[in-house]
Amino acid sequence: MRTDAEKEALQRIRPLTDEYDEILGVAARIKEEVNSSGIAEAMLVGSVARGTWVRGDRDLDIFMLFDPALSREELEEKGLGLARRVADRLGDEWREKYAEHPYINATINGLDVDLVPCYRVASGAEIRSAVDRTPFHTRYIRERIAPFVDDVLLFKQFAKAGGVYGSDQMTEGFAGYLCELLILHYGGFTPLIRAATHWKPGLLIDIEGHASRAFDEPMVVVDPVDPKRNVAASVSLDQMFAFVELCRGYLDAPSGAFFFPTREEPLSGAAFGEHTGERGTHLYAVTFATPPFIPDVVVPQLRRSLEGIRALLERSGFVVNRASEAMGEERCILLFELFCDEMPHIVRHIGPPLWSRANAEKFARKWRESDCFAGPYIENGRYVVEVERRYTRAGDLLASPQMLGVGLGKHVKRAMEQEWVVLRGEECWSPEFAGFLTTFLRKESPLTHLVRSGQA
Amino acid sequence: MRTDAEKEALQRIRPLTDEYDEILGVAARIKEEVNSSGIAEAMLVGSVARGTWVRGDRDLDIFMLFDPALSREELEEKGLGLARRVADRLGDEWREKYAEHPYINATINGLDVDLVPCYRVASGAEIRSAVDRTPFHTRYIRERIAPFVDDVLLFKQFAKAGGVYGSDQMTEGFAGYLCELLILHYGGFTPLIRAATHWKPGLLIDIEGHASRAFDEPMVVVDPVDPKRNVAASVSLDQMFAFVELCRGYLDAPSGAFFFPTREEPLSGAAFGEHTGERGTHLYAVTFATPPFIPDVVVPQLRRSLEGIRALLERSGFVVNRASEAMGEERCILLFELFCDEMPHIVRHIGPPLWSRANAEKFARKWRESDCFAGPYIENGRYVVEVERRYTRAGDLLASPQMLGVGLGKHVKRAMEQEWVVLRGEECWSPEFAGFLTTFLRKESPLTHLVRSGQA
Repeated sequence: MRTDAEKEALQRIRPLTDEYDEILGVAARIKEEVNSSGIAEAMLVGSVARGTWVRGDRDLDIFMLFDPALSREELEEKGLGLARRVADRLGDEWREKYAEHPYINATINGLDVDLVPCYRVASGAEIRSAVDRTPFHTRYIRERIAPFVDDVLLFKQFAKAGGVYGSDQMTEGFAGYLCELLILHYGGFTPLIRAATHWKPGLLIDIEGHASRAFDEPMVVVDPVDPKRNVAASVSLDQMFAFVELCRGYLDAPSGAFFFPTREEPLSGAAFGEHTGERGTHLYAVTFATPPFIPDVVVPQLRRSLEGIRALLERSGFVVNRASEAMGEERCILLFELFCDEMPHIVRHIGPPLWSRANAEKFARKWRESDCFAGPYIENGRYVVEVERRYTRAGDLLASPQMLGVGLGKHVKRAMEQEWVVLRGEECWSPEFAGFLTTFLRKESPLTHLVRSGQA
Repeated sequence: MRTDAEKEALQRIRPLTDEYDEILGVAARIKEEVNSSGIAEAMLVGSVARGTWVRGDRDLDIFMLFDPALSREELEEKGLGLARRVADRLGDEWREKYAEHPYINATINGLDVDLVPCYRVASGAEIRSAVDRTPFHTRYIRERIAPFVDDVLLFKQFAKAGGVYGSDQMTEGFAGYLCELLILHYGGFTPLIRAATHWKPGLLIDIEGHASRAFDEPMVVVDPVDPKRNVAASVSLDQMFAFVELCRGYLDAPSGAFFFPTREEPLSGAAFGEHTGERGTHLYAVTFATPPFIPDVVVPQLRRSLEGIRALLERSGFVVNRASEAMGEERCILLFELFCDEMPHIVRHIGPPLWSRANAEKFARKWRESDCFAGPYIENGRYVVEVERRYTRAGDLLASPQMLGVGLGKHVKRAMEQEWVVLRGEECWSPEFAGFLTTFLRKESPLTHLVRSGQA
């Protein structure tokens, strides 16, 4: 039995008949164009192919399956050549893009169409790269999903509304294919939601019972078409449990807000300043020009940089409450909230253990002749000296050359070698990051937000 | 070959002939008195018995060996009875003391005499308590030490001067018996000093080659009369290497200061305040009435309390540079030097993991209804909330009831249940602790001190 909230949601998310006709019509024309080339066979993949797309989605994924006898170079050359011709003939505009392999992204009849060359291999075990796997996913789901289309639509909408839909690096959530597998495994939306309330880290779902290796991610759903692959590899522990929390909240009180929450306005600059002041902590932002790469490349580097700088701050005694990163169109931001942003001018400098005689004697001799606050003395078998601290203010440390030595990602480092800016307190606010900063200050789990705002 | 420094030192530390006569005369009279009782046999033990005492030492240890057929109670009763009679007859005053067992400490002819009852057992393996072992130590050393008496004197003086002589809890250094064994093992003062420059943690010396178990202390010298005992168990890693450092310094430049260093004057209250100000850190002291027990009981409790309070401070975000403890006649002091003594009024409160469903839901429900700065949110699979911090100032935390919950030792806890005082900055200074505070602020290894003060 569907709840009222589910019935209402379905009314809003089921594709409309004319939308359906339009999108499949465009797909048919593109397929015809590809097939008429005689060198590749077109296959409609993605949620449209599986009948699991949500109203308003305007994406179409057409794969062009080539003879596996072609070399990688030939595939790229012929594949992109064909895709360009199709896009020229049918599209309004197009551009070359690059994920694992190059492909063409075109605008055709107002739809966002990806034209992706791949190999036509005989089984999932023979795939040469990730794109070759997609046709197998499409076939697997298409053969099974018919009884559960509404369930998939509800689940995708539920996950989107909760901020856990998408396997990209920014979201670390549930891919569309994963949503479909979970619905198949549990047999519908309601059984899935109920089961998820009991999930624990280490969850293992292996529909075909064919896992061929061990996995160590918090959530494992073995790919039915590839026993070595975890379809849920992208799901972080925290996003897994953000979803679990939403399921618990929904079962307690199923309301429409779990499918269509109202969003809060981001804080204005003034309100942000006030809110920051209330917390009494010390907020610092490091910003730099966004490297010219896709989010899935840049975001992991931002995370690594964030952790490197956090460690630098903490090594220097500046205790961090929280840190977060965001990638904007123009700038990237690394945000740090400190409990303490000033330190006395003393710092401990830990030397070699005394049983490493030559090193220890060299260290002690050097520092005995220098101006120290204390030491060299012996602590846990090592020499320690207390000397003048280089940066007594967190802001100065964040502006210092030490920043370039903390294991930033390659592209982040290149960007920061050009310039970076250190902002403090209210200065951190900008229209580009207003939403990010608001979420950071008011940090809440998805369910907490729904409850607090009176939506659940 | 003795260095000039050693020759000079020996001139100053060898007992004088009349001192020798006097001390042995007193010992003979006490022994006679004990033996004439007919119930115990007197034995002179300690450094006087071994001929390894240093000029000016006025200590005499007389053991009274009783029939091992006596019960523990009979031994205590008869032993203390005899000791009291001897002390009454010969001494000026006496008092009952208690180490592992009760004994009598008397002042006889201006000497400090311990009268200790023990069992006369046949071998080191049959001892019933630590005191029964002492006669075996005395015999073992007396039979071997004659060629090395000067070496022992030099070594003891060297260790005393360097602050590493004594196996008590405060010193964590080298007992007299350990000094003698090391001299025997290495064959003299110079070979010992040379060898020590190469010591590493895990040093194992087993003169009789009879160790009957594994030891995990940094320095192990197996007792020649008891294969299960490490004579160096009391030596801490840092004191072991303080000694090693002194040996290296002495071999580089053997000078008299290694035997007779000049001591610096403790800082006055005003100078202490100035010095503290220069460091720019935040100094806090906790003081309370000294529990009425011996240092070997109280000092380990002070250390445990120090670590407990340090952990409390650090859990609360107050970063500690160094901490130290001292036991005075009247008061004990726990001293903390903080890098940071004020925190914003936000504190993180970490809740249960979400997969512990009942607990997690209870936690989230409670805090969603409360006034939080942020949260409940999910971090590493757990709920976290940011709430009002109870103590934003280190001084308030140190004065709070939380202090009694940090695993203080029994006697320290009892003392603090009566009262404790929190002092800050220059207030920490008092004549009783001037020396301790000076050493704390100027903390240096022993050799660093000698070099800096131009003595070595």
